[in-house]
Amino acid sequence: MATAPKVSKTDGKNNHDAADEQADKEQQEAIEQIDEVQNEIDKLNENASEEILKVEQKYNTLRQPYFQKRSDLIGKIPNFWVTAFVNHPQVSALLNEDDEEALQYLSKVEVQEFEDIKSGYRINFYFDQNPYFTNDMLTKEFHLNDTGDPSSQSTPIKWNEGKDLTKKTNNGNKGKKRSHDDQESFFSWFGDHGDAGADELGEVIKDDIWPNPLQYYLASEIDEETGGDGDDDLDDEGNFDEDEEGEEDGEEEAEVEGEEEDEEEEG
Amino acid sequence: MATAPKVSKTDGKNNHDAADEQADKEQQEAIEQIDEVQNEIDKLNENASEEILKVEQKYNTLRQPYFQKRSDLIGKIPNFWVTAFVNHPQVSALLNEDDEEALQYLSKVEVQEFEDIKSGYRINFYFDQNPYFTNDMLTKEFHLNDTGDPSSQSTPIKWNEGKDLTKKTNNGNKGKKRSHDDQESFFSWFGDHGDAGADELGEVIKDDIWPNPLQYYLASEIDEETGGDGDDDLDDEGNFDEDEEGEEDGEEEAEVEGEEEDEEEEG
Repeated sequence: MATAPKVSKTDGKNNHDAADEQADKEQQEAIEQIDEVQNEIDKLNENASEEILKVEQKYNTLRQPYFQKRSDLIGKIPNFWVTAFVNHPQVSALLNEDDEEALQYLSKVEVQEFEDIKSGYRINFYFDQNPYFTNDMLTKEFHLNDTGDPSSQSTPIKWNEGKDLTKKTNNGNKGKKRSHDDQESFFSWFGDHGDAGADELGEVIKDDIWPNPLQYYLASEIDEETGGDGDDDLDDEGNFDEDEEGEEDGEEEAEVEGEEEDEEEEG
Repeated sequence: MATAPKVSKTDGKNNHDAADEQADKEQQEAIEQIDEVQNEIDKLNENASEEILKVEQKYNTLRQPYFQKRSDLIGKIPNFWVTAFVNHPQVSALLNEDDEEALQYLSKVEVQEFEDIKSGYRINFYFDQNPYFTNDMLTKEFHLNDTGDPSSQSTPIKWNEGKDLTKKTNNGNKGKKRSHDDQESFFSWFGDHGDAGADELGEVIKDDIWPNPLQYYLASEIDEETGGDGDDDLDDEGNFDEDEEGEEDGEEEAEVEGEEEDEEEEG
């Protein structure tokens, strides 16, 4: 980094005359006044943040009954969630064959933002009775502690004997051989608390899938259509707006002024 | 990508019985109802965005008189802006020696968000009379057009003869030799419209420096202190909150729910 070009000041350091000192004093006063003005600006910023948070909380509450209704409807569609996950490019990349089988028992997903949105969120995965584990709900939760550090916690999975999909050398999977380069299991994510501040899968589910899971579910329906299975109940997909709705969650606009991420990557 | 595990449906495609058809019909109805619910959620999201935009606009207006007052005070401090720029790690990296000299004539910086914040911003750079160019103001402006595509435009710089800092082979710079590996000039940025959607310098100035330029100006004052120039007018920096204030612009909170960027990089 280059040094500050405050030539006039540093040059005169050993022979200050009265005029220099007066100028220094005036500058110092100006700096203190700027600091006061800055404090006022900071207060306004805090107030703005609080108001925006209240708007977000209000709409989170308003959205709840619709999310509930959506969950009830999704419950009528077998394999809705596993299909949505398989059709999401990033999530799909995290699923091996065994994961997909186990996720056929995933009956309900819930994303909960904590009351103080800044402090985190939780994702609940409800499972029907299944051969893999005895939990009927798995949850992973992300939050910031009082010092602002991110952390996560999750439900320990109670695997049935020989069914632990997170163990690569799993031999109990009757009739199924896992290839040597088999990828890590989706379910390993529950035990991975290494990057709670930027948990990729958590954020994809919260920000991309949860705002509009139907578009990902339908992506497969359309694939099946064009695959020519003769069932054209669903060929009127013109009914469904598929224009990147996942991007349209309520906070999108607010990002326009807050795109610090790019910069921090350079720093 | 794995295929959708909708086994029950595709298996039965050639021997639908009445029960199958009834189940298909119910699922199709559920999908249509989910789509309706989704439309309601989308409407709520749009309303939330509008309300958040209004809050941001309100606070932008409330901040204006403080920004004006801050500009007036900054005008009393010689070399304020060049010092702040030189002390900002990312901006500093864009400045060569000639840029730093020219920027000593930069008397005022203004960041203006357009009324519809989504549509863009402008940065105005006011210059005292200087040997480099005849403009008293250079501006660069970023906006989204109606189709949402980003673009930028800027003031053509009226360089004095032989003073064009954007020309690497500039020979008119009396007594100064530019080394062969001399970096591109800061002023080239005005003519660079290649990445208007994510203009790095524009966003650093708008989101990082503009919210609190004093912290960057002071970074150099403190450096000079510890450099031992014997002038300790400013050793009481305890007066100034330097805890990353640049991050505290009003929209920070709103980002918590909208961190799609990371995901898109993977997609």
